[in-house]
Amino acid sequence: MKEKITEASISLFEQKGFSTTTIQDIADSIGATKGTFYYYFKSKEQLLKEIHLEYIIDLLKRQEAIVNDSTSNKEKLHAVIEMLISDIRKNGPRGRVFFREIRHLAEENIRIIKKERDRYRLNIESIIRSGIAAGEFKPNLRSDMVAFAVLGMANYSYNWFQPDGEVEPSELAAIYTSLVLGGIVKENGTPENH
Amino acid sequence: MKEKITEASISLFEQKGFSTTTIQDIADSIGATKGTFYYYFKSKEQLLKEIHLEYIIDLLKRQEAIVNDSTSNKEKLHAVIEMLISDIRKNGPRGRVFFREIRHLAEENIRIIKKERDRYRLNIESIIRSGIAAGEFKPNLRSDMVAFAVLGMANYSYNWFQPDGEVEPSELAAIYTSLVLGGIVKENGTPENH
Repeated sequence: MKEKITEASISLFEQKGFSTTTIQDIADSIGATKGTFYYYFKSKEQLLKEIHLEYIIDLLKRQEAIVNDSTSNKEKLHAVIEMLISDIRKNGPRGRVFFREIRHLAEENIRIIKKERDRYRLNIESIIRSGIAAGEFKPNLRSDMVAFAVLGMANYSYNWFQPDGEVEPSELAAIYTSLVLGGIVKENGTPENH
Repeated sequence: MKEKITEASISLFEQKGFSTTTIQDIADSIGATKGTFYYYFKSKEQLLKEIHLEYIIDLLKRQEAIVNDSTSNKEKLHAVIEMLISDIRKNGPRGRVFFREIRHLAEENIRIIKKERDRYRLNIESIIRSGIAAGEFKPNLRSDMVAFAVLGMANYSYNWFQPDGEVEPSELAAIYTSLVLGGIVKENGTPENH
């Protein structure tokens, strides 16, 4: 039932926004009572916090499995982009609620979520930095700005990409990866300090 | 006064969200009455529509000036990215309201805004296509996906970029432009059909 409440809420928050969705709306949408809601969640805000936390913790777990495997940094970057884009089919609504509704959390919860979000971004930055150190990527990159660029591209696709449309998720991931790699991979024979 | 109401509303919508901001909040924030608000706007929704429309029309006007000038497609792409990022200092709050609150418009207004938004995106796509046709960019690019990537990177910077921080807007624009161009520019000597 808890899972059912959460899924129904994600769908309502995505359509109507967190602020305008009432606990009554959530209960109605699954044919339950407000009492059932309060049995599982203290408040709408606590539910929103759990949605945010579960989402980012799950992403982090999968991302860190990628970071810690033994492939090249190019492949890691590809795998991270592919994970984010392939996720849209199953996790699109949750992702959109995550991106849009964070400011409706209480200050202390925003801090908790932002810490995990930063960790997620810094993991991408560290792939870029490792790639520079390993000579895979150009030496003079700003790894922090490249990480933001990767996240921007991938996250923005949650707003427009139709996973059941003409382009497959893995194809979009390949296009985006080759775009980024084209901008950062060191050409053979490029002098180190150039 | 109309401008003052609009600016105050943008600031409130950005902080609290459109749904939770009342007309009373808007009036209070500028020491006016609700009557003053209704003298200029039929409803909160009409105000939101005007904010959206003014924002995108202004962007389009400046973007199309760039598209129609006589520089190379590389330079056009740079100018479009630079415009979006330099705008954050002055237009950051308006941009964030634009990205986040569109779903609170009425269906017919969403259609009107989306049409202009699409035009904005298609202009970027057409720079990519022209660059391919002119032999500036690689021949086998998906110009539609590249346009989404450019918009994703640039728009996402509205969420994190501090224009008064360590990195200047023009520097971020240069980094992002060289990242994209690195991924799409045709190397000298690359065969046409490869």
